[in-house]
Amino acid sequence: MPKSKDKNQESSQSSITYPRGFQASGVTCGLKASGASDLAIIVADDICQVAAVFTKSKMPGAPVLISKKHVANGKAKAIICNSGVSNVCTGKQGLADALEMCRLVSNEINAKTQEVLVCSTGVIGPQLNMQKITQGISLATQSLSKGKIADHHVAQAILTTDLVPKAERLSVKITNKNIRFGGVAKGSGMIAPNMATMLSFITTDAHIDSTLLKKALKDAAAMTFNRISVDHDTSTSDTVIVMASGQAGNTKITRLGQSYDLFFQGLLKICQKLAYAIVKDGEGATKVYRVKVSRARSVKDADKVGKTVVGSPLVKTAIFGADPNWGRIVMAVGRSGAVIKPEKLSISIGGIKLCLAGEPIHLSATKSKKLKQIMQQKEILIAIDLGLGTSEAQWLGCDLSYQYVRINAEYTT
Amino acid sequence: MPKSKDKNQESSQSSITYPRGFQASGVTCGLKASGASDLAIIVADDICQVAAVFTKSKMPGAPVLISKKHVANGKAKAIICNSGVSNVCTGKQGLADALEMCRLVSNEINAKTQEVLVCSTGVIGPQLNMQKITQGISLATQSLSKGKIADHHVAQAILTTDLVPKAERLSVKITNKNIRFGGVAKGSGMIAPNMATMLSFITTDAHIDSTLLKKALKDAAAMTFNRISVDHDTSTSDTVIVMASGQAGNTKITRLGQSYDLFFQGLLKICQKLAYAIVKDGEGATKVYRVKVSRARSVKDADKVGKTVVGSPLVKTAIFGADPNWGRIVMAVGRSGAVIKPEKLSISIGGIKLCLAGEPIHLSATKSKKLKQIMQQKEILIAIDLGLGTSEAQWLGCDLSYQYVRINAEYTT
Repeated sequence: MPKSKDKNQESSQSSITYPRGFQASGVTCGLKASGASDLAIIVADDICQVAAVFTKSKMPGAPVLISKKHVANGKAKAIICNSGVSNVCTGKQGLADALEMCRLVSNEINAKTQEVLVCSTGVIGPQLNMQKITQGISLATQSLSKGKIADHHVAQAILTTDLVPKAERLSVKITNKNIRFGGVAKGSGMIAPNMATMLSFITTDAHIDSTLLKKALKDAAAMTFNRISVDHDTSTSDTVIVMASGQAGNTKITRLGQSYDLFFQGLLKICQKLAYAIVKDGEGATKVYRVKVSRARSVKDADKVGKTVVGSPLVKTAIFGADPNWGRIVMAVGRSGAVIKPEKLSISIGGIKLCLAGEPIHLSATKSKKLKQIMQQKEILIAIDLGLGTSEAQWLGCDLSYQYVRINAEYTT
Repeated sequence: MPKSKDKNQESSQSSITYPRGFQASGVTCGLKASGASDLAIIVADDICQVAAVFTKSKMPGAPVLISKKHVANGKAKAIICNSGVSNVCTGKQGLADALEMCRLVSNEINAKTQEVLVCSTGVIGPQLNMQKITQGISLATQSLSKGKIADHHVAQAILTTDLVPKAERLSVKITNKNIRFGGVAKGSGMIAPNMATMLSFITTDAHIDSTLLKKALKDAAAMTFNRISVDHDTSTSDTVIVMASGQAGNTKITRLGQSYDLFFQGLLKICQKLAYAIVKDGEGATKVYRVKVSRARSVKDADKVGKTVVGSPLVKTAIFGADPNWGRIVMAVGRSGAVIKPEKLSISIGGIKLCLAGEPIHLSATKSKKLKQIMQQKEILIAIDLGLGTSEAQWLGCDLSYQYVRINAEYTT
């Protein structure tokens, strides 16, 4: 992942076409007033096993509705994605346009319409400019290729106000075969008044049954993308898609067991990396904080606490201000909805215990100084021990800065 | 309510001692480093009918736990409240201190310990300085009086970083008797790292049964204080108390009916005024917005939508930036958890329809200009029609400004 915040910085290696069996391209079709690239396509050599998870919003975008249908049989050949306009709350026209995007791609790559998945991210409300999209799809399918340049173009074309492209790769060994994973993601941003949205496309050359692929993605997403928060607003467009080409040559994974576990660990790891990259590049973010909730009565309770602490504006502003105000963590735990016993609650920040079994701990001058230093760091660990059970969960959040307000307020139509 | 943001501006009339049968005072006991007043007391001439509603936080403060016990029989004679330290997450010592505050007051006013209710607001974690509290209680009980000066001292002494004191009064006629209501409230603020907290004390001279008083307060709070949001963080100290002295001379209200309805309308109105004052003075707030949700399948659903729209940081920053980005309202509706049919959703801002039955509406140049003007106003009305039923709810929120981040980040310990 690039360290500096430069959208144009090229990745030093391929990502999405690192696994065998995929080509990609990213182009500019003119949806963004800025002239930045805005259309990406990922095409597999052959039909892939595919799984996807989507936003739980009750106002899902037209592309979400179309992609849900197209992924239902666990097979697909391509993903088309535009940025700039999200095609959400666009009625019948929006649905027709999303379907048309699939049809246009399928025409170019010799596939069926329902073998193409579609995503859009950007402003809510406006209709897509289909003339520009049509030209863009034609251009993108003509410039498909493999390697770091094509992958970088894809990672760029799906961004809105993200500051850095997000691309990752890794490989795992399953029964002496190297299985590769590649992935790109976009986080929060805007090019016009917009909302935090999250997209991620992951490729692998693993040979795996689509039902198991679906289980693996669902479980991995639950532990990664579903445990991050930039501003606790849920997008109407959130989508994670994984495509498996099967070209790694491994014996097809058709049941749970060691091979599945190895595959799952690989998928989980790439999801973790992409989720971390999204939080780090959250709108206005200057710091990342990790919330480890332990000894909860259930995973659901641990999740409630983690989600509330990473979503609380008062905790977020304290992190931004490097203020070790653990009382705000107490507040967030209290309103999380989880089963809590005040006399069992313990909290520490960066390893320094601040509250033990419901009682505040008096800090020595040395420890107070150390705590101040910890609060200045770019990544902060908050540990919350509920003292009630054996379940745990880990969440990732970023701080709430002036820049967040600026990004989301200073647009004038 | 004072118009300018000056904490020291005096009210032009009495509030909490406007109803017959109450005395009050507010003093400085030294809990706040700023030297501002920090201890308030309200004392009734005789035992009152009393009702209260408290925070639903699972980490309630010690004063909440003590007051819940003391209000259980529906009778009390006094309220003692300090600001500066909230006495939350303070273990056994905190509970002993909260009880001791009641005992100290009861000694001075010739009452029983359990006839005193206690509230604290301020930093979470530190223990109270009981020496200062003891001196403060002695001073406050010696300076009890009636009238606008005493009431202003009470309204001031319960504040933290609130910019203006919040005090209201009104009267209603029940069977030819004038029933008076007075109330004070505090909203969000800090004097040290702190969190949004909400307290309100209401007096009335109505003669009413304590069971009905409880019902009236519960219903009124649900429609007012429970339908506002500054930053969607729920305090560990939220408390609303109403005391009824019975000195108005009305026939005691002992059942539902016309007299109860008149009483309820009065109580509701004063709660509405105080709730509005809290939102208007929310941390960093520059604007208030009202969200009217109509035609929901249930009140619960209408509340889910209203709560999400007034709590969404993306909607709040759009309001701050005067950006008519209704897509963010769509997003908030979508994640609210309410039953939603996208093709039934209609949204308008300030009376201008932006989305009708799930389809975006193209605005004329004149309407676009009008919409921009509306977004610049200090109070904005958002109407959301779910098109599914007959239930409705109205919520109040404030915008999210740089000042909110500043207040909550720029404290350094």
